[in-house]
Amino acid sequence: MGKDIAFELISEDATGARRGRLTTPHGTVETPAFLPVGTQGTVKAITRGELLRLGVEMILCNAYHLYLRPGPELVARAGGLHRFINWPRPILTDSGGYQVFSLESLRRIGEEGVTFRSHLDGSEHMLSPEKATEVQQQLGADLIMCFDQPVPYPADHAAVSEATDRSDRWAERCRSTHPTGGAQALFGIVQGGVSADLRRRSTERLLEIGFEGYAIGGLSVGEPRAKMLEMVRVCTELLPRDRPRYLMGVGTPDDLVHSVACGVDLFDCVLPTRLGRNGAVFVTGGRLNMKNAQYEGDFSPLDPKCDCAVCRHHTRAYLRHLYKAGEILAARLATYHNLHHYQRLMATMRSSIERGRFSTLLASMGESH
Amino acid sequence: MGKDIAFELISEDATGARRGRLTTPHGTVETPAFLPVGTQGTVKAITRGELLRLGVEMILCNAYHLYLRPGPELVARAGGLHRFINWPRPILTDSGGYQVFSLESLRRIGEEGVTFRSHLDGSEHMLSPEKATEVQQQLGADLIMCFDQPVPYPADHAAVSEATDRSDRWAERCRSTHPTGGAQALFGIVQGGVSADLRRRSTERLLEIGFEGYAIGGLSVGEPRAKMLEMVRVCTELLPRDRPRYLMGVGTPDDLVHSVACGVDLFDCVLPTRLGRNGAVFVTGGRLNMKNAQYEGDFSPLDPKCDCAVCRHHTRAYLRHLYKAGEILAARLATYHNLHHYQRLMATMRSSIERGRFSTLLASMGESH
Repeated sequence: MGKDIAFELISEDATGARRGRLTTPHGTVETPAFLPVGTQGTVKAITRGELLRLGVEMILCNAYHLYLRPGPELVARAGGLHRFINWPRPILTDSGGYQVFSLESLRRIGEEGVTFRSHLDGSEHMLSPEKATEVQQQLGADLIMCFDQPVPYPADHAAVSEATDRSDRWAERCRSTHPTGGAQALFGIVQGGVSADLRRRSTERLLEIGFEGYAIGGLSVGEPRAKMLEMVRVCTELLPRDRPRYLMGVGTPDDLVHSVACGVDLFDCVLPTRLGRNGAVFVTGGRLNMKNAQYEGDFSPLDPKCDCAVCRHHTRAYLRHLYKAGEILAARLATYHNLHHYQRLMATMRSSIERGRFSTLLASMGESH
Repeated sequence: MGKDIAFELISEDATGARRGRLTTPHGTVETPAFLPVGTQGTVKAITRGELLRLGVEMILCNAYHLYLRPGPELVARAGGLHRFINWPRPILTDSGGYQVFSLESLRRIGEEGVTFRSHLDGSEHMLSPEKATEVQQQLGADLIMCFDQPVPYPADHAAVSEATDRSDRWAERCRSTHPTGGAQALFGIVQGGVSADLRRRSTERLLEIGFEGYAIGGLSVGEPRAKMLEMVRVCTELLPRDRPRYLMGVGTPDDLVHSVACGVDLFDCVLPTRLGRNGAVFVTGGRLNMKNAQYEGDFSPLDPKCDCAVCRHHTRAYLRHLYKAGEILAARLATYHNLHHYQRLMATMRSSIERGRFSTLLASMGESH
């Protein structure tokens, strides 16, 4: 890997679950790890201090959003993204591929790149593998992603094949723009939809190019979970053991545990933060909608088995009141609790892999969810 | 005062500024003090933990809002407002008079009380001096307010006189509903618009009834500041030295300093929280609008002279970005900073009164604002 980036595989469970450690210029990340999403340079409703207290070791930011606002030049002037948002630990940026293709802002796609309109002001922009990589270089995240073309689900085999081939060609141009060995590690992104053949072909091509880590993209877009896990397994079976694997945009607690069993090391997802803002909190064994009338007079904590600050201090009845009253504090408290729930889940997974007990955890998840 | 409520006058400055200590069943409040507004049972965007870290000793909640949602019965079932919102320190509730008359929800006003429609669902409700007092008894705040009829500014003398007379008669009925000596202190509210005669008459009537403390209401509603301060002075000159004085809904930092010079002990205002959500931050000597383009590349702290967590960790450029991006974190950070600014101002005033230096502070405020 790069001179400042290293991945150490500490132990491997019989299931395929891996316990690892990623070292970056901004500190280490114990894996498997979940990255809260800080789309526009903040994990929504949460401060850096709270993230540090939660033990979060890495966050994800979106190059697309930061490219449009405040712009990579301003971030560079601030001394980079870490300085601009004052987050001292590692950051991963995605390339913008997903946003360009999903925000209905697409104008033209060609071999060179993608012309699109800003979702903010309609202005026209062009992102290419080179440009997306340069933007991420300006932002200065520790882990950066190749510019790719994800495909929606369902899509016909020919369309998936074409997009995957293009993504693979673009990955080569990203690699040329960002050679191995610096302070930023470049990840290739495996595409291929739900076709095992295309996934294998994409993985093999990326391996030929060679990246510091490998992301698995284009999943959790509506396909059945069994299919998603099958695709993850197809990829991880081919990926080198000594490189980190990152499953993009996944997922529920159940998804995380099953994907870790497939050998995934890194995850990001808006679920704990977005659901928190919308009224849902994760609790041991499930999920509650705090807006429901049944919690109106429920003076118990969100999750009686949780020891986070929200569960120690506040009741379901109070949280429901805050949601009904449209108070910002509702979003804050639920987001904090949900991130704590995810952090605790990842810590439990890491510990159970270390103790060779991950298969027991995996079996228990199947029961409780 | 009540058996659990006491007010101790520690020192008095030549200007009339007072340094005092209010003791309640939920702890003491060093005065002059500013109460952040927690309308619906939360200081908007801020947690209890943050308020405690800011050194906030008392907050205000609105009986009107809590009466409509979640309802005083639910709050009582939770064990009272302190338990429901989990705020361990003193709380002051206003009676709902101001909201009933200002939210354009008014239906009929009579000697018995006020019939109004909920601003939430249009349902019809009736608040009387007795009912408003009972609601506040159910909520269980340490300081509770008489149900009054504030008058808008400007208003003709006859209308002000009539509303003030009615408020005074209602104050007597509140007193009958809530006798002296319990764990909740009842404050009378002086009305009288901007007429010195009516202010004096109202003050004298409330003194005849006798309250644990006295609020000055119906000010900061559009009248010139000199007129407001004149009215405050008219009231405080008549009010007993051994009872706390509370100027409702005031105000800017400048207003606070000048009102303290008139002998006011307690304040509440939405200004630091509401302005924070809308993009304005208080800094030494003034106020900045963080949405302005001039802060786009300004990597200095909000207020270089401030030592709050926001100023230590974040720049104006980052805050501006958060506002432009519509992020909740903008409201959080600015609200926290603004409350810190108010807390620091009150601490400075208390210390300068103790040292007999308040007149110097007063003079310097006039210059910097």
